[in-house]
Amino acid sequence: MYRTHTCGQLRLADAGTNVTLAGWVQTVRKFGSITFVDLRDRYGITQLLFNETLNQQLDEQPLGREFVLQAIGTVHERSNKNANMPTGDIEILVSEFKILNKSAVPPFTIQDDTDGGDDLRMKYRYLDLRRNPVKRNLELRYAVNRAARNYLHDNGFMDIETPFLIKSTPEGARDFVVPSRMNAGQFYALPQSPQTFKQLLMVSGYDRYYQVVKCFRDEDLRADRQPEFTQIDCEMCFVEQEDILKMFEGMIKYIFKQVKGIDYTETVERTTWEDAMWTYGNDKPDIRFGMKIGNLKVPSTIFLSRQQELSNSPLGVGGTGFAVFDNAETVLAIAVPGCAEYTRKQTDELTEWVKRPQIGMQGLVFLKYNADGTVKSSVDKFFNPEQLKHIAASCKGQPGDLILILAGREEKTRKATSDLRMELGKRLGLRKENEFKLLWVLDFPLFEYAEEENRWVARHHPFTSPKPEQIGTMINNNPVIENAADYLNHPYSNIKANAYDMVLNGNEIGGGSIRIFQRDLQEKMFAALGMDEEEQQHKFGFLLGAFEYGAPPHGGIAFGFDRLCSILGGSESIRDFIAFPKNNSGRDVMIDAPSVIDQKQFDELQIKLDLK
Amino acid sequence: MYRTHTCGQLRLADAGTNVTLAGWVQTVRKFGSITFVDLRDRYGITQLLFNETLNQQLDEQPLGREFVLQAIGTVHERSNKNANMPTGDIEILVSEFKILNKSAVPPFTIQDDTDGGDDLRMKYRYLDLRRNPVKRNLELRYAVNRAARNYLHDNGFMDIETPFLIKSTPEGARDFVVPSRMNAGQFYALPQSPQTFKQLLMVSGYDRYYQVVKCFRDEDLRADRQPEFTQIDCEMCFVEQEDILKMFEGMIKYIFKQVKGIDYTETVERTTWEDAMWTYGNDKPDIRFGMKIGNLKVPSTIFLSRQQELSNSPLGVGGTGFAVFDNAETVLAIAVPGCAEYTRKQTDELTEWVKRPQIGMQGLVFLKYNADGTVKSSVDKFFNPEQLKHIAASCKGQPGDLILILAGREEKTRKATSDLRMELGKRLGLRKENEFKLLWVLDFPLFEYAEEENRWVARHHPFTSPKPEQIGTMINNNPVIENAADYLNHPYSNIKANAYDMVLNGNEIGGGSIRIFQRDLQEKMFAALGMDEEEQQHKFGFLLGAFEYGAPPHGGIAFGFDRLCSILGGSESIRDFIAFPKNNSGRDVMIDAPSVIDQKQFDELQIKLDLK
Repeated sequence: MYRTHTCGQLRLADAGTNVTLAGWVQTVRKFGSITFVDLRDRYGITQLLFNETLNQQLDEQPLGREFVLQAIGTVHERSNKNANMPTGDIEILVSEFKILNKSAVPPFTIQDDTDGGDDLRMKYRYLDLRRNPVKRNLELRYAVNRAARNYLHDNGFMDIETPFLIKSTPEGARDFVVPSRMNAGQFYALPQSPQTFKQLLMVSGYDRYYQVVKCFRDEDLRADRQPEFTQIDCEMCFVEQEDILKMFEGMIKYIFKQVKGIDYTETVERTTWEDAMWTYGNDKPDIRFGMKIGNLKVPSTIFLSRQQELSNSPLGVGGTGFAVFDNAETVLAIAVPGCAEYTRKQTDELTEWVKRPQIGMQGLVFLKYNADGTVKSSVDKFFNPEQLKHIAASCKGQPGDLILILAGREEKTRKATSDLRMELGKRLGLRKENEFKLLWVLDFPLFEYAEEENRWVARHHPFTSPKPEQIGTMINNNPVIENAADYLNHPYSNIKANAYDMVLNGNEIGGGSIRIFQRDLQEKMFAALGMDEEEQQHKFGFLLGAFEYGAPPHGGIAFGFDRLCSILGGSESIRDFIAFPKNNSGRDVMIDAPSVIDQKQFDELQIKLDLK
Repeated sequence: MYRTHTCGQLRLADAGTNVTLAGWVQTVRKFGSITFVDLRDRYGITQLLFNETLNQQLDEQPLGREFVLQAIGTVHERSNKNANMPTGDIEILVSEFKILNKSAVPPFTIQDDTDGGDDLRMKYRYLDLRRNPVKRNLELRYAVNRAARNYLHDNGFMDIETPFLIKSTPEGARDFVVPSRMNAGQFYALPQSPQTFKQLLMVSGYDRYYQVVKCFRDEDLRADRQPEFTQIDCEMCFVEQEDILKMFEGMIKYIFKQVKGIDYTETVERTTWEDAMWTYGNDKPDIRFGMKIGNLKVPSTIFLSRQQELSNSPLGVGGTGFAVFDNAETVLAIAVPGCAEYTRKQTDELTEWVKRPQIGMQGLVFLKYNADGTVKSSVDKFFNPEQLKHIAASCKGQPGDLILILAGREEKTRKATSDLRMELGKRLGLRKENEFKLLWVLDFPLFEYAEEENRWVARHHPFTSPKPEQIGTMINNNPVIENAADYLNHPYSNIKANAYDMVLNGNEIGGGSIRIFQRDLQEKMFAALGMDEEEQQHKFGFLLGAFEYGAPPHGGIAFGFDRLCSILGGSESIRDFIAFPKNNSGRDVMIDAPSVIDQKQFDELQIKLDLK
């Protein structure tokens, strides 16, 4: 062993002890004939003092930043203590030292605030990983991993490894494939999730399964996506939705406690998918703040259960001669608290914000609900004050608030309103970094309609069960959509999934469902997705087969581990919480992968390039 | 929740309680108007009693094997207790039941001794997994996983995930590759191990790393190999060999204790690679039994340090006119304890055994060291009794032993002797199932000689450091072998690796090394393996780069997790300890993978088949 103690270990009580430390040179400070060196390792920093007797050796072997140093000496009480460092009461009076390895000058500073840009830090990721903020992220990641495993273990879950070389069944996302040399012409796929395997483990009676496992999706990457990502993947037998919700909100609360020291004692809120969309324009709402949407006008084809509510509203915003509202499919309002005094410059900026291509709206209607109770808007000539107050009331506007109204096509307008709400929540400091609010979103639609193919697609995945009371609707109706224009009246369009998402501060951190475990229902599902019997058999014959031999009721959930860590760590980017992430082109710029392979490899795999 | 208790939970103390159980029907036994059902889940079996009041319902809904059943009833004390079952004191008097799912008749019996053959059980792996022996294997696997993690955590190791989509650097085994759609014409590789990444983590100062991680090798499969396998992968900073040995024999002892309840208090034995080869003919000897090899003749080019020992022997077996020994490069003997009385039939069978193609020897020479001290051999006319006793003494033969002598080419003869020793150890019951003996094998040669290419290959891997005192030898000599015939006199041929294997009962369960952390030494190593500077840069530029920025001394080890579990579980086959293994052609016959992929996938990946 090159050391007797770590660089974070020694305290005043150790004074007088002879120690050997090893680590990296953080700083070298020369004062006349003495030299101070801060020596760093994973555990901390300890100050070394080289006095005049070592001067000559230091001159011959000068120390530089990031040199690897072994130092032998005695622990001394410091005269000039540093209360900010755990080892700040002591220093090591060095009697002997050895440079274990030198370092070139790093391309950026190894400090909390580095001067290195993203590209440089990714190329030299092994140096970036030395920085405290990155190290803290990986330590947090390990703490979350450990807490999740401990909770699951204590609750009787078993870690069972599922295979990585499986079968390509593209459905939704694209698979990464792996050519098989021993079975020329055939390919494995890397798993997008262990979904079918964990279901088979339930059929096998393993009862409670978990894995912290890599998954793969060959999708075009956005800033917060990676081609390989990690899931906390879980499945349980003989459970209903309520059992899963209880078990896994328990897990997240346990993680909060273990990792962040937070007692999350409140009940985890729940909402239906429809309520979330109606109220927040979003199926993963951030409920740390209000600013709920006022629905002034919606098409009669969606939110069917709300039509009554809407028609009872004292205000129809259409038909007043204001073309923007009259012609809009949807009109939505939010009340921005305490912002009635916004200047023209500020409201203009908001208009520009919603007109950006990412939002894509035509404009924004303002209504200032002044503190004195008067209202003033850009549409005063179409609406009287009474009507304007009704608009304000629709989104719970109070005197002093600025009401923002968006109008246009339903889907786009709702999304824009949600984005605007989130943006203002951020600007107004309502999305507090150290506040954590969990939310279960329930009762998703089981299907979405795929217009191009005039068929259903599974909103969650094809193994999700409908609500128990709607199994009959699914079994007893033909999934084929005879009349495309009338798809909303097909019985399948109203089937709700027995599925649930867990949302944390506006991010989906986990999602799952009670699964189909009946062969006939599973076949009906596959048929609804346009798979004929042959395709079903080719892709999922093993699962349909398994359902014939006593498949139990079961369900599960998967948490996006990278995302969960990033939110707990207070960051927007999952990349900061991955030791060796890939960039937006799916490249690891440090090792320079992917890369070309040898002709010998092509020959053995019996494939060749076919570049367009 | 479909149940109040599991099928392994209820005891006499629960008598009178109303319970709901759910599980699989193991057996149905009808006795007149009452029916007994054994209900099974992961946790155990509970007997259900259906009395006459449920008879009609049972007739309408007959139960079959593997049906999924929910039963409500009251816990009763059994009149006929079963002491072999934890729940054997009670039964459930069923008041209500529900068939949750039916089952077709399984293709084999779900019992400890099944009637299903290997192929059938692999195809219906989800049913095979229900069998107790398979379940116990996976439970043991999880227990080992958990124990290893706990030990490593308690010793300050951090689980850090390394990437799966990396760069192909074929060196030794073949890589599985993954075509990149976003970088057409380029490929990722799946990791054969996280070797370079864990070393980078040491360069980054993470100090103690571990992972229980899937690795991939595209090799032709033997019975105990899988294309994907799991490693317990570990690395430490600022350590020497001794630190690693202590840390990881500690881990294995901890696993013994936690998983098997065994206190492995003895010191773990150590041997050098040369001693192991000399004494056991094998670098992973089973030291549960003796039967050490007597070296009667070896070529003068190997075991150089033993030549003195050999030349001091009172016996040269060559030159007596017995052509088999005279012409042999190597003559080796083992003493089989207490077998001097073997019949002709028995010795003939042993001769046939060594002549099998897998062993490939020409024959076997016998020497019976009778209990009365006399000797009798098949070569009596070439050796007098005194000489024969010397031969027996070379392998520590005692009166009553049967001495077996093999002669031929060094490598083949030594391997054959080792195989014969293992076979006889097994036949004589010397390899006891419940005895566990650990052994460290040290001081491997750093290089092997590759005749075809007249260059060195790394015996362990190219990142293994030579012994500290031999670094100079490596740095200061040209690795090029000028004279192929004389390669044994090249200074590199005597360099020993700073490497270690952990052997358990004759199986290598782990191996590792102290790593090279100096750029110049690493370059020298790559050069010795025949890599020019360009190739070094292309394949390992990132690592050489990292070594310039303060790489610390480090080393590590990786355990073959599948193998470790199989040995602890008392099985020869790792496949029994993998939930979803592949067969010898690398196929998963249950899901039928690998398989063909769609033309669309080829198009997107810009590759095509090139079948020979």
